Amino acid sequence: MLRLSQLFVRTLRDDPSDAEVPSHRLLVRAGYIRRAAPGGYTWLPLGWRVLRKVEDIVRQEMDAMGAQEVHFPALLPRDVYEATGRWTEYGDNLFRLKDRKGADFLLGPTHEEMFTLLVKDMYSSYKDLPVSLYQIQTKYRDEARPRAGLLRGREFLMKDSYSFDIDDDALAVSYAQHRDAYERIFARLQLPYVIVKAMSGAMGGSMSEEFLAPIEVGEDTFVRCSACDYSANTEAVTTSVPTADSNTYDASSTIATPNCPTIATLVDFLNANHPRTDRPWQASDTLKNVVLRLRQPDGSTETLVIGVPGDREVDMKRIEAQLSPAEVEPLDDAGFAQHRTLIRGYIGPQILGKTSDSGIRYLVDPSVVHGSAWVTGANTKDTHVIHLVHGRDFTADGTIEAVEVAAGDPCPNCSAPLEIARGIEIGHVFQLGRKYADKLGLTVLDHNGKQVVVTMGSYGIGVSRAVASIAEVFHDDIGLKWPRAIAPADVHVVVTGKNGDDITIAGEKIAAELEAQGLEVLIDDRNGVSPGVKFKDAELIGIPTILVVGKSLAEGNVELRDRHAGTNEAIPVADAVTRVVALARSGQ
Amino acid sequence: MLRLSQLFVRTLRDDPSDAEVPSHRLLVRAGYIRRAAPGGYTWLPLGWRVLRKVEDIVRQEMDAMGAQEVHFPALLPRDVYEATGRWTEYGDNLFRLKDRKGADFLLGPTHEEMFTLLVKDMYSSYKDLPVSLYQIQTKYRDEARPRAGLLRGREFLMKDSYSFDIDDDALAVSYAQHRDAYERIFARLQLPYVIVKAMSGAMGGSMSEEFLAPIEVGEDTFVRCSACDYSANTEAVTTSVPTADSNTYDASSTIATPNCPTIATLVDFLNANHPRTDRPWQASDTLKNVVLRLRQPDGSTETLVIGVPGDREVDMKRIEAQLSPAEVEPLDDAGFAQHRTLIRGYIGPQILGKTSDSGIRYLVDPSVVHGSAWVTGANTKDTHVIHLVHGRDFTADGTIEAVEVAAGDPCPNCSAPLEIARGIEIGHVFQLGRKYADKLGLTVLDHNGKQVVVTMGSYGIGVSRAVASIAEVFHDDIGLKWPRAIAPADVHVVVTGKNGDDITIAGEKIAAELEAQGLEVLIDDRNGVSPGVKFKDAELIGIPTILVVGKSLAEGNVELRDRHAGTNEAIPVADAVTRVVALARSGQ
Repeated sequence: MLRLSQLFVRTLRDDPSDAEVPSHRLLVRAGYIRRAAPGGYTWLPLGWRVLRKVEDIVRQEMDAMGAQEVHFPALLPRDVYEATGRWTEYGDNLFRLKDRKGADFLLGPTHEEMFTLLVKDMYSSYKDLPVSLYQIQTKYRDEARPRAGLLRGREFLMKDSYSFDIDDDALAVSYAQHRDAYERIFARLQLPYVIVKAMSGAMGGSMSEEFLAPIEVGEDTFVRCSACDYSANTEAVTTSVPTADSNTYDASSTIATPNCPTIATLVDFLNANHPRTDRPWQASDTLKNVVLRLRQPDGSTETLVIGVPGDREVDMKRIEAQLSPAEVEPLDDAGFAQHRTLIRGYIGPQILGKTSDSGIRYLVDPSVVHGSAWVTGANTKDTHVIHLVHGRDFTADGTIEAVEVAAGDPCPNCSAPLEIARGIEIGHVFQLGRKYADKLGLTVLDHNGKQVVVTMGSYGIGVSRAVASIAEVFHDDIGLKWPRAIAPADVHVVVTGKNGDDITIAGEKIAAELEAQGLEVLIDDRNGVSPGVKFKDAELIGIPTILVVGKSLAEGNVELRDRHAGTNEAIPVADAVTRVVALARSGQ
Repeated sequence: MLRLSQLFVRTLRDDPSDAEVPSHRLLVRAGYIRRAAPGGYTWLPLGWRVLRKVEDIVRQEMDAMGAQEVHFPALLPRDVYEATGRWTEYGDNLFRLKDRKGADFLLGPTHEEMFTLLVKDMYSSYKDLPVSLYQIQTKYRDEARPRAGLLRGREFLMKDSYSFDIDDDALAVSYAQHRDAYERIFARLQLPYVIVKAMSGAMGGSMSEEFLAPIEVGEDTFVRCSACDYSANTEAVTTSVPTADSNTYDASSTIATPNCPTIATLVDFLNANHPRTDRPWQASDTLKNVVLRLRQPDGSTETLVIGVPGDREVDMKRIEAQLSPAEVEPLDDAGFAQHRTLIRGYIGPQILGKTSDSGIRYLVDPSVVHGSAWVTGANTKDTHVIHLVHGRDFTADGTIEAVEVAAGDPCPNCSAPLEIARGIEIGHVFQLGRKYADKLGLTVLDHNGKQVVVTMGSYGIGVSRAVASIAEVFHDDIGLKWPRAIAPADVHVVVTGKNGDDITIAGEKIAAELEAQGLEVLIDDRNGVSPGVKFKDAELIGIPTILVVGKSLAEGNVELRDRHAGTNEAIPVADAVTRVVALARSGQ
């Protein structure tokens, strides 16, 4: 039995000053976790119980799908990650260190390389495949901005698994098995999720989907179609490329545009001084050229210009996802100083492109279709050019999905309007393909006796992040409200008596009976703590069933409180154990 | 059911080339672990099952004694360890790293500081005490020479706990509770142990005992008395100080001792040229002065001379344990070059001591008692001095336990002869006292309303090392022989048939029935693998009960093999399930 009189917990009345999101706020206030380091948290007894229950559910479902559990070190030698390029590609996100002999090590962010080598070490034939291996292990990532408590930490618990198959069809089966297992896991955790198309990030590979818990505080933005089943992380949304524009346009002409510092003032100026005959000029007629600086993990940099319609915002996360592992930032003053031909506010594509004099790479959003005409900078202050046609007057080095996806944009699948929402990434399934097996030489003999490269999948669930995500879903203003499957106990017995009085004796007896029935019982047996404080703590801690043994015992009653339903029922003390046991066994 | 046809395991016929000890050799060969990094091992499915069973036993007993489980990060900020001095004191053994912002971090070797601060953060009154907290967590230590597989790794799993008490009496109670829990844990693991007095090492504090598994490959040497219950790590053996020598001796005299490069030649020379009247000279009459160099963790060094009787060896580990956190090594040539007065082979204490001209600190072993006379170097080549009396002709700056303890040395408790053995440190219990609480400001209000400093204990069990220690105890030439409580399964069913034949059908049926009875079953259902290979693998893997379903099925029999007893019994197939279930439930 957990006794609040002895349990290592202190609830806090005030929010911690650094807590931005409800899960962080409440998990700290209710005594589940405590900050120990930047991006590192200590699990207190209540939190540790919840984490282990989540971990057990993940383990059970991974075992049930036939995956086998192993466990790798977190401290790994550089050479393996060097062989796949990730030592460099991971950039600042990797914790690197040296041992006493000066040898390089890293703290594992994920273990693709190690699993690949392990299978290479043990297996050699198609008969050994398929195999899926997993671990539930502490991971490290040197986040630039650890935030939101457990949602984005630098040390976190993750389930990572890896499938090994002889060919693509078999990989598709392993992938589907993991995907199904993930659906069962999140269902058992009662964690709502959306499965969305995803980018591959630094992992390499092809088919990839994320499980997002649709929660406003999430860092990921995703779209879903209002009509079909399309859904995708906005990073991974592909614009359905419009057909090329076959209109013919006047020859381009350069015009003076004094006092037009913004697109809005430019559009007004054009309508006043160079009106169109068909309709007024609008922001979507302008071509905005954004200058970026790419930094590759090896430290090399490149200036890059991206052209997007003037009515759209640029989405740096989408751009970065496509240019990964490079990091992307707007070019700074020092950068502009090195490119005298780039006149801020008046940049046009006429001087851009790898084959141009500037040599600056120029990409356009797919919405800047071939044959379309634009108003854009003339590369001279206070001057623009109109009727500049893509393919006639300028060219691009390629396209890149660059504009911020907006609610109402057409679905790339069926053109119905897209909806936009935010979510927390709680799982990721990924067809890696042969990238790692190729680089590390993982081959097996196929049934013809020929060496073939193994194809792999990688699959992750953030276990500690799942705890926070569940807390984000299941809470209200006064505290947490855990799903029963992962609550730190089945029932929270609040005893409002004093040491030795009838109420206390009755409360202890009921608690003992509940425990004898196999329930996990938390009892608030603190002496000298007011009923009001005990009620507040019970609400904050958030065990789904609260049984109050208090004053109404005089009338032969106890109070059964349901934290989820918010109900409060007086029941005969004689029924208390039966009722609570039934509730606990119902799983609700 | 674990099926060898699918289990991620490959047994090896040959020993791994780097394996020095049986546990390492067999755990790798039987497919329990695999080397992943220097001093870092991957747990394969069989090994992971064993580790988790050991972990569960540790957890159950810690919970049963009232300790509460928490979990800290491994990646910890420097400032906390700076506050107690351990950032420096740990020297090269600490893995240090910087994050992307250049802030210093370490990988936790133990968590005294973090637990102290956590209790400080949460508790404030004597009413909150006592409290014992523990974690089962991955630890890091940058060992100079990782060796012996899991016995001395750089990344390992440890249970570390900490007790917090209001005064010394209460600490003694918490200490005894931990000690008792440890005895229960090792009893359940069937791991033989000796509890010995220990040194405190880099931890600080007072009373300290180690649990050593008496195994020849262990790195620790300990003594136990043949008569009383005294036992101690040799590092911690205290010589019972002999009473001061009250004899009177001749005045010291310097003599030429040509061609006496060793103590033996010196003794011969003395007996031939300067015979004693009472008895011959012997090696124990000579005083050997050993020159050492101390290196403090901050990098500063000191030359130190230690005097011991010429018939005894110097034990560097004992010396180092007493001078910790300094590291100790013999002074090298360059060091001697800086001390021209130290003539190698002829060093005598006449020129040593902090207040002497040399200023070199001089310590003696306690056996060099006050008033005793010695033959020693005269600080000139080919010259010694005889009748040099401690206290009359030379002084020391103090004593230090320096000689190698030998079998037959007198017990410091009862003077009976000591026995010497080697062991593996599997647990450590430790009265830390107020060192950490003082430095980190952990105080509580006592019942008089006065702030008092909390007193602490720290207690460790090497969980991964326990697995290796058990393997050291329970194995023979052909493989492992796990105690039932931690075996990866209850029974290993060897089916020697081919797919679809009667033997296979019968074997599968028995295995299913055993599983239905709640047993953990490993079945060797590999097709096309010879019975001989299957038997060898079963012996190597070491599950205590092996049930062979094979040819004798024709006579209605199966074979029950006991890996511990080495027995092999034909039993009626109808009895198989009952017999195996009974064995499993017997716990034997």
